[in-house]
Amino acid sequence: MTRLLIIGGSDAGIAAALRAREIDPGAAVTVVVADAFPNYSICGLPFYLSGEVPDWRALAHRTAEEIGMAGIDLLPEHTARAIDPVGKTVAVGDPAGRMRSLPYDRLVIATGAVPVRPPIAGIDLPGIHLLHSMEDGFRLRRYLDERAPRSAVIVGTGYIGLEMADALTRHGIAVTVLKRGQVVLSATVDATLAAAVEEELQRHEVELRSGVAVEAIETTAAGLLVVGTSGLRQETDLVLVAVGTRPASELAAAAGVATGVRGAIRVNRRMETNLPDVYAAGDCGETWHRVTGQNVYLPLGTTAHKQGRVAGENAVGGQREFAGSLGTQVVKVFDLAITRTGLRDQEATAAGFAPLTVESKAWDHKAYYPGAHEIVMRITGDRRTGQLLGAQLVGHWQAQVAKRVDILAAALFHGMKVEELNDLDLSYTPPLGSPWDVVQAGAQAWVRQCRSGGNTSLRV
Amino acid sequence: MTRLLIIGGSDAGIAAALRAREIDPGAAVTVVVADAFPNYSICGLPFYLSGEVPDWRALAHRTAEEIGMAGIDLLPEHTARAIDPVGKTVAVGDPAGRMRSLPYDRLVIATGAVPVRPPIAGIDLPGIHLLHSMEDGFRLRRYLDERAPRSAVIVGTGYIGLEMADALTRHGIAVTVLKRGQVVLSATVDATLAAAVEEELQRHEVELRSGVAVEAIETTAAGLLVVGTSGLRQETDLVLVAVGTRPASELAAAAGVATGVRGAIRVNRRMETNLPDVYAAGDCGETWHRVTGQNVYLPLGTTAHKQGRVAGENAVGGQREFAGSLGTQVVKVFDLAITRTGLRDQEATAAGFAPLTVESKAWDHKAYYPGAHEIVMRITGDRRTGQLLGAQLVGHWQAQVAKRVDILAAALFHGMKVEELNDLDLSYTPPLGSPWDVVQAGAQAWVRQCRSGGNTSLRV
Repeated sequence: MTRLLIIGGSDAGIAAALRAREIDPGAAVTVVVADAFPNYSICGLPFYLSGEVPDWRALAHRTAEEIGMAGIDLLPEHTARAIDPVGKTVAVGDPAGRMRSLPYDRLVIATGAVPVRPPIAGIDLPGIHLLHSMEDGFRLRRYLDERAPRSAVIVGTGYIGLEMADALTRHGIAVTVLKRGQVVLSATVDATLAAAVEEELQRHEVELRSGVAVEAIETTAAGLLVVGTSGLRQETDLVLVAVGTRPASELAAAAGVATGVRGAIRVNRRMETNLPDVYAAGDCGETWHRVTGQNVYLPLGTTAHKQGRVAGENAVGGQREFAGSLGTQVVKVFDLAITRTGLRDQEATAAGFAPLTVESKAWDHKAYYPGAHEIVMRITGDRRTGQLLGAQLVGHWQAQVAKRVDILAAALFHGMKVEELNDLDLSYTPPLGSPWDVVQAGAQAWVRQCRSGGNTSLRV
Repeated sequence: MTRLLIIGGSDAGIAAALRAREIDPGAAVTVVVADAFPNYSICGLPFYLSGEVPDWRALAHRTAEEIGMAGIDLLPEHTARAIDPVGKTVAVGDPAGRMRSLPYDRLVIATGAVPVRPPIAGIDLPGIHLLHSMEDGFRLRRYLDERAPRSAVIVGTGYIGLEMADALTRHGIAVTVLKRGQVVLSATVDATLAAAVEEELQRHEVELRSGVAVEAIETTAAGLLVVGTSGLRQETDLVLVAVGTRPASELAAAAGVATGVRGAIRVNRRMETNLPDVYAAGDCGETWHRVTGQNVYLPLGTTAHKQGRVAGENAVGGQREFAGSLGTQVVKVFDLAITRTGLRDQEATAAGFAPLTVESKAWDHKAYYPGAHEIVMRITGDRRTGQLLGAQLVGHWQAQVAKRVDILAAALFHGMKVEELNDLDLSYTPPLGSPWDVVQAGAQAWVRQCRSGGNTSLRV
């Protein structure tokens, strides 16, 4: 009987536990969960805070009862303090602070990520929030309910920052988003698509300020004062800091687990670390990128589920390899869906490709049928080989943008050439598409531009 | 200078013309168009007739001006009467009935399909309509406008029949749909999914009668009387007959072009017929099925565009092969989208596979976010090899069902195993998906059932 111990009860940890029990119903699987919320949909917090999801309990991917039914032993509100990889034990603190030593045959580390706390003076003042755990969500919700803020400043323009701009606007709060750089969502899409997102924010009266770095936050008689570069002095009732995450790899590193990119736990495609019988999965570790063949740090829930599944299977004797991430992602901001898969120009160049990115526009369905929306698409391909490298799409969230990027993700998974997208037999009816789908129209635009650039080796 | 003559101005013909001019700007391309509506979206007619599309002119995929701008010579309202493959000419009648002989170096036959006219006595009476051409659409629209029918009988339960049940219901017309068999859309989806479509029709007060064959239609003082088996005697103001199409291959056959499946023109993957320099594309010809590797008759607009593109390219010296059809299709009926790609059980068995079809249900996005819809999915795979063979999905038309079937079509294109769908890196945000997308949840259900059936060779 394999004793499998898992540190972390979010997506990767629970996926590992469930898969281990599915493959080996005899395995004794224990999951150490830092809080009382195993396998909650943390990415659903903005929708709880917006009021769209009335009850936070609905955010559970699976209930503790369901997990228990699968024969998994959950230890909620327990904290792993130290790993002994020689004695094969983990020291764990229980809710009362008492320490226990848990033995393991196999260990899966799934400790996730922690929000980056930027060096801002006063960041711990009341009224300043981060958003990463369920507890963070409750704290912010209480603040909204009790203090009824009329204004908010959001520091950071990634997913959480923009989803929360949307959520707070729904409460009638006047929101200002501060960008350190020039464009929002710069880690996700190129500047022209980011501009469309900024228009959407402005259409909903979210104020945007570019090129400002917050240096300090102070309390005033009226509330909070946010001070920064470019003469920034903004009074507000609420500050949300959402400037990204970093891997929670300290516990592992202290036990001798090797780390790599951005301090994330180094893993191979079997999700093995450098230590025998120790696996890692999810946001605490590196991710193998299928297009570049290299490890990156790309924390995404979808990846955490997949990596956890692989780790759990291998921890009970399986031989599975993680098929790799393409970085496929989508975020909804007001009425827009912003999506991306694969590489952008700069990443492709860094990986040794010769990228060409071509932007095109197409209707989500035949324009004569009511409710057509224009989708803007950027396809990146290698100008020497014609290989598809990545794509970005922005359009109305009900224009099937999210599943269109998935068609491209499937193509990318198989290493298709851009031109070959035209060979895919995709569905069509006038209310839902075109005889050549948006993704194929984009491919045709890419091939035309590539050919006009003198690449005659392409089958155009 | 290649003289390329194309017979047929719908999807395949125009696609061939445009592609030929793109590849060889020196080619002299002439298209013989039987009516005055080159490259109209015939599949948009139900939406014109429903009133959702107010102006029929909007149905043009491309205007005659756009086609002319591409340097294509259109001959509208001309009819090809005979092909002389030895002298390489086509005899064509102009609008005044005068005959001309047009020479060609290469010929593309894209004569499309014609609606099947079942042996019903009285089928030519006024008030009885078919729907295949723009002219058919105008005739029906005039009948609706001038006669304001209050009731309609639709004979046939394919796409046109059900789209028109939807369209006529929007006019306040009481619609009865007559099924020869037991279920609607029997050529598209299995009985359990067809049942969901029937519920949707009934929810919109469309009456369904099963197992009846229409034998005669008569005029009465009140209007029309539809008479058939099972004691059918139904009075109505309007009858629409939509029982499918057959390839319009007579002109080609008379010239010695070989025909095959269901009388369709036999073509290879280069879209060549048996005669030198004569190509065929679209609904008049056979279609190579990528999963079975065999030719079938599967008339779809998407396929016509692709085949036309291949034929046009090869006709001016190209070397392209049609990548094959998967039969990917979608139809919208009221609020449902019904989709399918690949093979169903009986087709898979006939092709030598050992199919297993597993039905599952999943929410289109996280159920906690408002507006979630359940999608019902049937995945068909080979129980011996685990190979994906096909899939059917039914769900709310705004639940990204159409582009989800396209993810499966992309997987099928690459010969993936069902289990490997879990390796695809698909996008996720709570309002638009789940960490494991619907298609992956369906794959997991299939693998579980396959394994419980004793197939231990699958990597589960």
